Amino acid sequence: MKLTKEQQQEIKDQQSLEQKTKRVTVPALEKILYEAVPALDHGFVRVIDYMGDDSSIVQSARVSYGKGTKKVSTDSGLIKYLMRHWHSTPFEMCEIKYHIKLPIFIARQWIRHRTANVNEYSARYSILDKEFYLPSKENLAAQSISNRQGRGELIDGDQAREVLELLKNDAERTYENYETMLNERFDGSTIDKNKKGLARELARMNLTLNTYTQWYWKTDLLNLMNFLRLRADSHAQYEIRVYADIMLDSVKKWVPTTYEAFMDYRVGGTEVSAKGKLVIQKLIKGEKVSPDDSGLSKREWNELMIAFNLEDKII
Amino acid sequence: MKLTKEQQQEIKDQQSLEQKTKRVTVPALEKILYEAVPALDHGFVRVIDYMGDDSSIVQSARVSYGKGTKKVSTDSGLIKYLMRHWHSTPFEMCEIKYHIKLPIFIARQWIRHRTANVNEYSARYSILDKEFYLPSKENLAAQSISNRQGRGELIDGDQAREVLELLKNDAERTYENYETMLNERFDGSTIDKNKKGLARELARMNLTLNTYTQWYWKTDLLNLMNFLRLRADSHAQYEIRVYADIMLDSVKKWVPTTYEAFMDYRVGGTEVSAKGKLVIQKLIKGEKVSPDDSGLSKREWNELMIAFNLEDKII
Amino acid sequence: MKLTKEQQQEIKDQQSLEQKTKRVTVPALEKILYEAVPALDHGFVRVIDYMGDDSSIVQSARVSYGKGTKKVSTDSGLIKYLMRHWHSTPFEMCEIKYHIKLPIFIARQWIRHRTANVNEYSARYSILDKEFYLPSKENLAAQSISNRQGRGELIDGDQAREVLELLKNDAERTYENYETMLNERFDGSTIDKNKKGLARELARMNLTLNTYTQWYWKTDLLNLMNFLRLRADSHAQYEIRVYADIMLDSVKKWVPTTYEAFMDYRVGGTEVSAKGKLVIQKLIKGEKVSPDDSGLSKREWNELMIAFNLEDKII
Amino acid sequence: MKLTKEQQQEIKDQQSLEQKTKRVTVPALEKILYEAVPALDHGFVRVIDYMGDDSSIVQSARVSYGKGTKKVSTDSGLIKYLMRHWHSTPFEMCEIKYHIKLPIFIARQWIRHRTANVNEYSARYSILDKEFYLPSKENLAAQSISNRQGRGELIDGDQAREVLELLKNDAERTYENYETMLNERFDGSTIDKNKKGLARELARMNLTLNTYTQWYWKTDLLNLMNFLRLRADSHAQYEIRVYADIMLDSVKKWVPTTYEAFMDYRVGGTEVSAKGKLVIQKLIKGEKVSPDDSGLSKREWNELMIAFNLEDKII
Repeated sequence: MKLTKEQQQEIKDQQSLEQKTKRVTVPALEKILYEAVPALDHGFVRVIDYMGDDSSIVQSARVSYGKGTKKVSTDSGLIKYLMRHWHSTPFEMCEIKYHIKLPIFIARQWIRHRTANVNEYSARYSILDKEFYLPSKENLAAQSISNRQGRGELIDGDQAREVLELLKNDAERTYENYETMLNERFDGSTIDKNKKGLARELARMNLTLNTYTQWYWKTDLLNLMNFLRLRADSHAQYEIRVYADIMLDSVKKWVPTTYEAFMDYRVGGTEVSAKGKLVIQKLIKGEKVSPDDSGLSKREWNELMIAFNLEDKII
Repeated sequence: MKLTKEQQQEIKDQQSLEQKTKRVTVPALEKILYEAVPALDHGFVRVIDYMGDDSSIVQSARVSYGKGTKKVSTDSGLIKYLMRHWHSTPFEMCEIKYHIKLPIFIARQWIRHRTANVNEYSARYSILDKEFYLPSKENLAAQSISNRQGRGELIDGDQAREVLELLKNDAERTYENYETMLNERFDGSTIDKNKKGLARELARMNLTLNTYTQWYWKTDLLNLMNFLRLRADSHAQYEIRVYADIMLDSVKKWVPTTYEAFMDYRVGGTEVSAKGKLVIQKLIKGEKVSPDDSGLSKREWNELMIAFNLEDKII
Repeated sequence: MKLTKEQQQEIKDQQSLEQKTKRVTVPALEKILYEAVPALDHGFVRVIDYMGDDSSIVQSARVSYGKGTKKVSTDSGLIKYLMRHWHSTPFEMCEIKYHIKLPIFIARQWIRHRTANVNEYSARYSILDKEFYLPSKENLAAQSISNRQGRGELIDGDQAREVLELLKNDAERTYENYETMLNERFDGSTIDKNKKGLARELARMNLTLNTYTQWYWKTDLLNLMNFLRLRADSHAQYEIRVYADIMLDSVKKWVPTTYEAFMDYRVGGTEVSAKGKLVIQKLIKGEKVSPDDSGLSKREWNELMIAFNLEDKII
Repeated sequence: MKLTKEQQQEIKDQQSLEQKTKRVTVPALEKILYEAVPALDHGFVRVIDYMGDDSSIVQSARVSYGKGTKKVSTDSGLIKYLMRHWHSTPFEMCEIKYHIKLPIFIARQWIRHRTANVNEYSARYSILDKEFYLPSKENLAAQSISNRQGRGELIDGDQAREVLELLKNDAERTYENYETMLNERFDGSTIDKNKKGLARELARMNLTLNTYTQWYWKTDLLNLMNFLRLRADSHAQYEIRVYADIMLDSVKKWVPTTYEAFMDYRVGGTEVSAKGKLVIQKLIKGEKVSPDDSGLSKREWNELMIAFNLEDKII
């Protein structure tokens, strides 16, 4: 990640702000506010603003449940209870805003989460930065054979070099031709004064999907957790997981109690189907149960055994 | 439930429609289309329109996963896979519209599910029907002592009679005074020609919360399942569960394969936290595990044991 | 509005907070933070938290439009431009949270705006306060004759007294019977130790719709403006307008530039249809145009003339 | 647009369906159901399913307004009234589903409308088709000088040829290298049996933004109109307007009365600000009004004059 001098100055200016407020504040999050945490080769994640903290969740839950919540002695107990029983609205009372720089193909995956507010850099108005994602060698994986959407073993040696070469050359050439069509370089200089420049909204179609874009992305804590549950998961594409992991860390700083409950119940937890419950019950009681008469498909059986770390029962 | 002659005629007219269409249709659902299934003492649930069926879910999943889905041999296998892995968007491709008559205090609970489209009968424009919900004796429960939001044992004998009397009298009197203020009866007749009528938007405030209202409620299948998971659950208030159960039945007719997966994974299933997983694992391996060193609170421990039907382990 | 001592103390405590933050702050809004601004006879509006200010809108617009926005010289010019051209996403970058106490029949109107986050006081868990809305005499209007949903001339004299009497008596009696059924008074004291109390989730159905409830309501600035455009409008019901006006005032303190553009383009502005445009054009050119050959209905014609203050042309 | 034999057969099969239904149907829309209407060089728009018609809007409006709507004599009058007064919920009662093939850079613009349901072809699972958008010569415009986001005069002659050459070559080469990295051709054949193929989720990043993708896109009529108002507008990018125009035509077939009101009030209409209203009023009354003392910026003044076709007043 390489910030322009202008950007570095802007971050410094923002970080030097010291305002007084009556709102709840979170010192641990304030500490990293505006900071650009690097992601992939040219991307970053910045927390730009936030509203509320763990106590805001408790506060609104207590409005909902009134005097009824007095019995749950601690805030932490209440937050765990809310998480466990999918009482989702109190988590919507916290809000966070990120500034994110990411490759377009990841942005396309990301935007499928529709509940956030987004302002993206517009390539209709402006020229995109000359930056594209190139995977590092350790992340150059072959198509998985067992899993249609995942990655298998690493690609290395000559083939790895060839792949990286192709990615680099194609991104550079398409970007150069983008400039040629625009008749303008990314630094704003005109190429040929006797020529017109193609409309930006058209020229952008020549760029490859690893070109970087950026956006402001604002969401409430509930939807953020829904996003992170899917995108910080081991099945998520590596490139989006890098971002999710950084954001997960900001959640930990922001709302530590909620973070803990989230990791316990959502990220580290598992869902067991009605049929799966019967299997588990029998296993606990020491009764015999075979995949065949469990009512589970082979795939389901294995997913269940993996969830409970029963490797010896995988078929 | 008492339909007016006008309403009965309208339903008959709708049911006698026989159009040709190239859209997918579901004969089992067509059979009950427009029918008013009774709910509580004066309410009903009517399926008014629908879009798509099980095959529409499969169709859009196959667009998403392209040739990658050919490996899952059956539609049913694919739907189960989508449900198990929270691949939610294909379920959004089906849509259903209900016409529902329900008491206002239930409508208030219902509307908290914000993702549906709603058109409610407006008491600013029109006079509400003279109908209010009175619980049957079997549903007259005392406040639960252990559970702040639930019901405990039945109330019966004199106290039950007294409660029903109070509910009935108050609803009738406030409705009568509503008419007096409006200077108009619910059948449209004027009470006193020399008097003005209070604005409807004001007079309605005198009605009790068991007065019936009605609305059109349209949602996609994903959000309907989210609603039903919470509202057909045994912890939901009895009065809304009555509606949820009827709607669950319409889902069974509409998308039988999805219904089955939903019952198995969502309704009949359970979530186990990271800590809970360790407990279950130890129980399966025959290792000792006590509530104290499980890391679970007493409440969590018991919820886990109940989920797996291990009554002897409840503390 | 009567706050309990407990509530007054809580507000004082919140207002005495003085934290440091690097986030943008709005001193004018900080000044009224947590304050309970009275609404109707027992309600209030409190700003509890906020995120962003006018500069946050500009900031995210400049990300969207990149260098393209440098041409619009001022922040105010940019905000006006965004408002005029319905570029809505930058306004979503600001968020505000209110704590509101309001009568149930108004809450029912309010909740139709589905895009906000809500945590409402739950009458399943807790006993509702003994407070109900009674209109003041100046707001006791008869049903409008020309407008099916509006209010007409005032009701006064004996009839006014009678209406207020009915409203007061019915609210008091139904509340008293609510307590009887609960076997518990609103202050928490038990009525008859030998009796059970009816479940709260049931007893609440006996309350009238002017009973007060309360909630936390959080929304972004765009959706807040959509709400206010409809609810601060002269056609909105008086009782909700009271709340909308207070909130409008908080918007003015919070984002003064946006407020100004909102008042000019949305609240004070008007929409003219394609047919209406032709009428206006002819009027400007001094050409003859009669309602009959305008293509407008009588109602549309009059709405158009009223919008442009052309009273002499109303038919 | 070139459909595969398989796709042509699928469309034929769908079109030959003839089911009976009690639901409302729209013969004019049934006629084009499943048909692939060409868009740009390789794209298409297909209506796949729909729910409701003009009468469904009226039906739900009448539930909302109850007997109050009897005064509006015709369905058409009621729909116009709803449109004029932004009574939006009845339009949400109709739903439509499209199957669309479009270039990725247009898909990115489109997806910003967050309220629809989407299932997109996944390049994590499957290989994208070898098809990319190349503008026709008449659409090869230069960057506008006055409007930062728009198109100016045409690019022609040698420069046009050069641009098209660059676009074509870059798309072809990057696609070819995509196949090389995958070690698989788009027809499924393996390139080199001794090599692994790069994971699809990685290889896709090499494609240019004019590559075609496809999705199922389902939305309600209200949100569809919001989309079309912006995207069928003359300021929208040409490439998305092509799609919007085709969809506008399907709306005309589907709900002709709503379509008419939509064209009159939204598409053909204009918004006038509070300050603009004063200007128009003075113009009608023949009073003098100059841009300087109008309170409007030069830009606003001109937009207002253009809206009312007063070319001679543009400054």
